[in-house]
Amino acid sequence: MKLIENKILEDGKIINNDILKVDNFLNHQIDLNIIDEYAKEVKKFFKEEKIDKVLTIETSGIAVAYAVCESLGKVPLLFAKKSKSMIVDSNVYSTEIKSFTKNFVSTVTVNKNYLQSGQNILIVDDFLAEGNAALGLIDLCHQAGANVVGFATVIEKGFQGGRKKIENLGVKVFSGAIIKAFENNKPTF
Amino acid sequence: MKLIENKILEDGKIINNDILKVDNFLNHQIDLNIIDEYAKEVKKFFKEEKIDKVLTIETSGIAVAYAVCESLGKVPLLFAKKSKSMIVDSNVYSTEIKSFTKNFVSTVTVNKNYLQSGQNILIVDDFLAEGNAALGLIDLCHQAGANVVGFATVIEKGFQGGRKKIENLGVKVFSGAIIKAFENNKPTF
Repeated sequence: MKLIENKILEDGKIINNDILKVDNFLNHQIDLNIIDEYAKEVKKFFKEEKIDKVLTIETSGIAVAYAVCESLGKVPLLFAKKSKSMIVDSNVYSTEIKSFTKNFVSTVTVNKNYLQSGQNILIVDDFLAEGNAALGLIDLCHQAGANVVGFATVIEKGFQGGRKKIENLGVKVFSGAIIKAFENNKPTF
Repeated sequence: MKLIENKILEDGKIINNDILKVDNFLNHQIDLNIIDEYAKEVKKFFKEEKIDKVLTIETSGIAVAYAVCESLGKVPLLFAKKSKSMIVDSNVYSTEIKSFTKNFVSTVTVNKNYLQSGQNILIVDDFLAEGNAALGLIDLCHQAGANVVGFATVIEKGFQGGRKKIENLGVKVFSGAIIKAFENNKPTF
């Protein structure tokens, strides 16, 4: 989406040649004009699919997922919770996710009551880099016997290989913008 | 709002006689039919006010705040970040907030670029108990020289005194439901 590419060029800050900071419209302040347009495109991309619920992971995925749920006709939103504790409630599905930007592993859980066999789940997240969060959320769905309809992200860093790992599991991927590389401290699309 | 009171009676779970768990529509899974209705009531309650931006705090406030921003005509959403680190970036406003449910203190920050002098800010959060989060967010606004238009919460535990502390600062409070007490393991309104 040109809208998102332009916003990244205007406001994004590249840190350590690997991390893109977009605090102005996605990760700290959220621009509803952009996220609502993104959500409409997600609806179009997955228009053939039945979607019962949207699954995301705290924190930055929640606002985007809310907009997507709205565009899909107010389907429920479920956000997986991160915990550093190894003591996990027995009524949850649980997986381990390594954060690319923060370089630590979180135990991520969803309550079994809210993710169930046969449900059609669209997974939404703010970023796709190496795909760790997406694979973890897909794992939670598979544990529940739920069907993963697709994965939608706002910004994909195409050079970090996440898409291929997700598609290899038979899951379709939609990205609002795909960054090919960072060149001279600017993203190219 | 009857809608929210009924949902609490149907789905809420009281833990330790103090904590209300509403994971079915607010704190883990989010029911857009309820949260969107809530957001319309927030708009009505603050209809005389000019609102430039909505401020909330991660995590459970974000979805509610998104719906409120939408109902106010897509004003920007800013979420304050919790950090356990004492090392704070110089370009942020920072305050300490004690979590009622989790019993620890977080350093909470917003970037100075996104909270500015003269802006009219509506603060939104999922719960109001002792008012610690609200007071911390008001403090951030005051540090910035921003004007706090009001505080909106989905569920207020009226017996924990938060409202009075906020109103004493001259800030109007709107709650979707006010719980008077927990009696025989049931909330009363």
